[in-house]
Amino acid sequence: MPKILDQIQGPNDIKKIKPKELEQLAVEIRKFLIEKVSKTGGHLASNLGTVELTIALHLVLDFPDDKLVWDVGHQAYTHKILTGRKKGFDTLRQYQGMSGFPKRKESECDAFDVGHSSTSISAALGLARARDIKGNDNKVVAVIGDGALSGGMAYEALNNAARLDSNMVIVLNDNNMSITENVGGMANYLGKIRTGSKYRNLKDGVENVIRSVPCVGNRVADKVKRSKDSLKRLFIPGMLFEDMGLTYIGPIDGHNIEQMRRAFLSAFRANEAVIVHVVTKKGKGYSFAEKKPSVYHGVEPFYVRTGENKTKEKAITYTQVFGKKLIELAKEQESIAAVCAAMPSGTGLMQYRKLFPERYYDVGIAEEHAVTFAAGMAAGGMHPVVAIYSTFLQRAYDQILHDVCIESLPVTFAIDRAGIVGSDGETHQGVFDLSYLCSMPNMTVMAPKNGTELEEMLSFSVKQDMPIAIRYPRGKINNRLEAFAKPIEYGKSETLYSGEKIALIAVGSMVETACDVREKLKSHGIHATVVNMRFVKPMDTERLEELTKSHSVFVTMEENVEQGGFGQKVADYLQTIKRNDIALVNCSIRDQFIQHGNVEILKKTLGLDADSITERILLNL
Amino acid sequence: MPKILDQIQGPNDIKKIKPKELEQLAVEIRKFLIEKVSKTGGHLASNLGTVELTIALHLVLDFPDDKLVWDVGHQAYTHKILTGRKKGFDTLRQYQGMSGFPKRKESECDAFDVGHSSTSISAALGLARARDIKGNDNKVVAVIGDGALSGGMAYEALNNAARLDSNMVIVLNDNNMSITENVGGMANYLGKIRTGSKYRNLKDGVENVIRSVPCVGNRVADKVKRSKDSLKRLFIPGMLFEDMGLTYIGPIDGHNIEQMRRAFLSAFRANEAVIVHVVTKKGKGYSFAEKKPSVYHGVEPFYVRTGENKTKEKAITYTQVFGKKLIELAKEQESIAAVCAAMPSGTGLMQYRKLFPERYYDVGIAEEHAVTFAAGMAAGGMHPVVAIYSTFLQRAYDQILHDVCIESLPVTFAIDRAGIVGSDGETHQGVFDLSYLCSMPNMTVMAPKNGTELEEMLSFSVKQDMPIAIRYPRGKINNRLEAFAKPIEYGKSETLYSGEKIALIAVGSMVETACDVREKLKSHGIHATVVNMRFVKPMDTERLEELTKSHSVFVTMEENVEQGGFGQKVADYLQTIKRNDIALVNCSIRDQFIQHGNVEILKKTLGLDADSITERILLNL
Repeated sequence: MPKILDQIQGPNDIKKIKPKELEQLAVEIRKFLIEKVSKTGGHLASNLGTVELTIALHLVLDFPDDKLVWDVGHQAYTHKILTGRKKGFDTLRQYQGMSGFPKRKESECDAFDVGHSSTSISAALGLARARDIKGNDNKVVAVIGDGALSGGMAYEALNNAARLDSNMVIVLNDNNMSITENVGGMANYLGKIRTGSKYRNLKDGVENVIRSVPCVGNRVADKVKRSKDSLKRLFIPGMLFEDMGLTYIGPIDGHNIEQMRRAFLSAFRANEAVIVHVVTKKGKGYSFAEKKPSVYHGVEPFYVRTGENKTKEKAITYTQVFGKKLIELAKEQESIAAVCAAMPSGTGLMQYRKLFPERYYDVGIAEEHAVTFAAGMAAGGMHPVVAIYSTFLQRAYDQILHDVCIESLPVTFAIDRAGIVGSDGETHQGVFDLSYLCSMPNMTVMAPKNGTELEEMLSFSVKQDMPIAIRYPRGKINNRLEAFAKPIEYGKSETLYSGEKIALIAVGSMVETACDVREKLKSHGIHATVVNMRFVKPMDTERLEELTKSHSVFVTMEENVEQGGFGQKVADYLQTIKRNDIALVNCSIRDQFIQHGNVEILKKTLGLDADSITERILLNL
Repeated sequence: MPKILDQIQGPNDIKKIKPKELEQLAVEIRKFLIEKVSKTGGHLASNLGTVELTIALHLVLDFPDDKLVWDVGHQAYTHKILTGRKKGFDTLRQYQGMSGFPKRKESECDAFDVGHSSTSISAALGLARARDIKGNDNKVVAVIGDGALSGGMAYEALNNAARLDSNMVIVLNDNNMSITENVGGMANYLGKIRTGSKYRNLKDGVENVIRSVPCVGNRVADKVKRSKDSLKRLFIPGMLFEDMGLTYIGPIDGHNIEQMRRAFLSAFRANEAVIVHVVTKKGKGYSFAEKKPSVYHGVEPFYVRTGENKTKEKAITYTQVFGKKLIELAKEQESIAAVCAAMPSGTGLMQYRKLFPERYYDVGIAEEHAVTFAAGMAAGGMHPVVAIYSTFLQRAYDQILHDVCIESLPVTFAIDRAGIVGSDGETHQGVFDLSYLCSMPNMTVMAPKNGTELEEMLSFSVKQDMPIAIRYPRGKINNRLEAFAKPIEYGKSETLYSGEKIALIAVGSMVETACDVREKLKSHGIHATVVNMRFVKPMDTERLEELTKSHSVFVTMEENVEQGGFGQKVADYLQTIKRNDIALVNCSIRDQFIQHGNVEILKKTLGLDADSITERILLNL
């Protein structure tokens, strides 16, 4: 039997599908998604949850004229399928393959690039205002998850959307989840709407009281129920949004295409911003993902039948090392508290959370609050450890600077996924943190060469009375450098190999690469020095000065952009001490965004692998 | 008659004042504030609004054990008076004098350093959790304005405060203002509570319908009114907050000390986070400030009797130049739209706002949303100009990087108050922008030497199809350099004087200083070259290379931190081209926060004045 999905080759093809076949289309899309993602890896549970929602939206929108903005974007696979990108799934998230997120350069049906959370309403409001100013009449829709709604900028945007006097539709895709379960007052509120409990109770309460009045109660109650709109609002859900000046429609079954289609059409008729509250199930249609949506949020290749990961190897990751060590430290030191932003699993805090519930805070997707909340705890005598990925910590730039650094409060930042992260691409690379953190007064910035050093640094940092950032890469630890374990000393580097002429001066993950480069240089008769900087700020200038005495080439190595990075600091230092005769080879990331792909391939294209670096050094001799 | 204020010498002294004398105390404090601020300048209207509020809080709190966190902090003068800092007002905001904001290092009664908006609930929640973990029982209070409530991180914090199972009080100081009038859905909502209209209408509506039922309606209505708590909530204000899981008390007259005192005591009895909604009048008690609260928000020294500014001089500021030029450009180019974050006056957009209401957006104190909203408009074919002070733009670091730069959207950032801003101090200096903006791929960063160049740059930037930042200083333009007006060319610098040996290479405001340095060097027989970089990114390396041919000393000059700043980029460049024989004198801000004080004094202490720089150069010869 020919597949219905085969009829979909490009944007708007869905409108040719018969209504009664739409459910079958959803089934086929799910099958397609599970099959493809099982091979390439990718975001699964979030995409399985939005199949019908996307179908319903595509039935009422015209692409590319109408503008659809996905929040975060890890739920837009069906949108890619329906806009002619089925083939892309063979190369999903691979180097030069299709991105896992919406990209304007990939399709004109992608209205806005996304990746970080809570941006969609702002962007859509911008698109709506641009439309109005230009006198166009296209539709604008933002789809935002209930998790993303915990991010403050979503609220800032809602606050402004309330002033819009033209149409824009905000679809609240409510699956009661961030990557893990949702937290906070808003999540509770949505929960009550979803289950209908609160409003039913209130409504029933009023009604019952009225009806309980002997003889006449019923008549009065009926009259109230028939009364004008403003009164009905007392009995409908979504009043919080209505109070903010938005029109609310919902809750609606997010797996009922026809119900959603009608809701959207009705929403488009308003001359204002309308929230359509849609309830979906994350992982829908794949039992393993339905049961464990957070495990199947982002997956590596897996066996469809069993749901098992194809990678047997159970390598230890930096994330795990961090989580384990923090537990050990928290047992000894009662002032330690852990703070994360909706990612207890991703940051390695699941076990810690069980053991220290009183000293564990998941604040939701709210990095700004996370940091200032931690600053408050620090001002109150605690030593919080804030665990946030490098790319998401960018959200809290000002809070780190303004609330932690000015007061020089004892907050440790455990910055996971620093450096090149791979398949999530441009929006997720953690390659700016050295630059922005080092420019902040009072901040100390460290990077470990391996798992053991991460443990030592964490242990060291929670004993200091100052802000300290420890940035470490995604993925598995290396076990090669265990022999090198000089105790951590504030501001001091560690020399792994003392050689001559060439000093390989590396930051964090690049120390291992430096050792590889050293091996390669050996075959050219060169015995290079390898220094593990440990502290990017303050920089061990004493050691650098020593190195100038017996070396003529400094090679700096870091997984960070060149601008404001470690290499530029070394260049500046050499100028300062007027040791300008030293040749400097700065191995960092040139001024560019880095697309998605395998980390090894990306490093090669960026010239950050051992071969490329060796080659550059030899050219500099 | 002895003043009541004289009895207040230190923390908690207020508790000795007789209740009937408290109103007189408020009068005396207001008189004191008006008198002092008329001499030193400072924040006036916001402080006049919070006199009774602060008195009421001090009656129920014990300092320093109890923790009081002020949002922004420009309303904490009465708090300073009541905690023994009356004398400080003689040196308010002056170099080495008392700060205009709460500072932990200034008093143990200041619980948390503030300056930027919307941080107080996060910090207070941190203090509350630290208290609970440590088993203490002190009180924790945050005071946040309705303006600051438009900032997303306040919402993130409320969302988390809802989960607290111990006490914390959030005083919502509602004066219906940011620095200028408030905007957005939340402001409307608060307005309705304040005037009572919405809830009165709803309540009356329900009641009237019920009562209208012949004969028995009244009986039923009375029964509903007597019914259990959950029903009463239908008829009380603040339900939006209650929906979020917070307990709401209010609205309360923020100039009635006794009413507030009782509300606070009742709020402290809850085992949860409580919002006390207090309505105040900004500028209260000083007629000029009451009439024009935004004009008297922050003031220069003024005559108390007339309210007039003591400074007669009406110098033209960069802010004015920007505002005027933008109007001119917007007339010609319909794609231009202006976006600001609650500061139309501060950023020079008041006139523009009148002329182009359809292309003007004040989004409230919501820098993150401002930037992504602008990105959305740009994706929709507009060219938005985002006008935000340097220090506040830090809030939108991630939005600039993630939403504007990745897509390389045509957004112009008009960054006022870049560099050293003076009397607001540590929290407000704009000395990080060159570092953080230059590290972002696809971003162009410019800085004008004078007002005319700001016009040219603005004009240039709105014609480009890419993100461009133009950063310019606080205060008046200089008119000295009008003779130099080479047309702007992308990535190209401008040479003001061609000399030899020493190249003074300056950014923006420092170009004028470079000319001063050149004059001073003349008397030492040195004819220095003066280059106005114009573009910090991309850097005019062609010109730099030329300069290496005839100069042996490069002097870089910038009002920005050294780390990641312009000087380090030049150092790096010289290393790259192996012109290591050039001596580099990097004049920038060493790794430190800069306190408040007169800009000229601060520049001197930082070594950024012409004398200090000249001296450093002579030492380097």
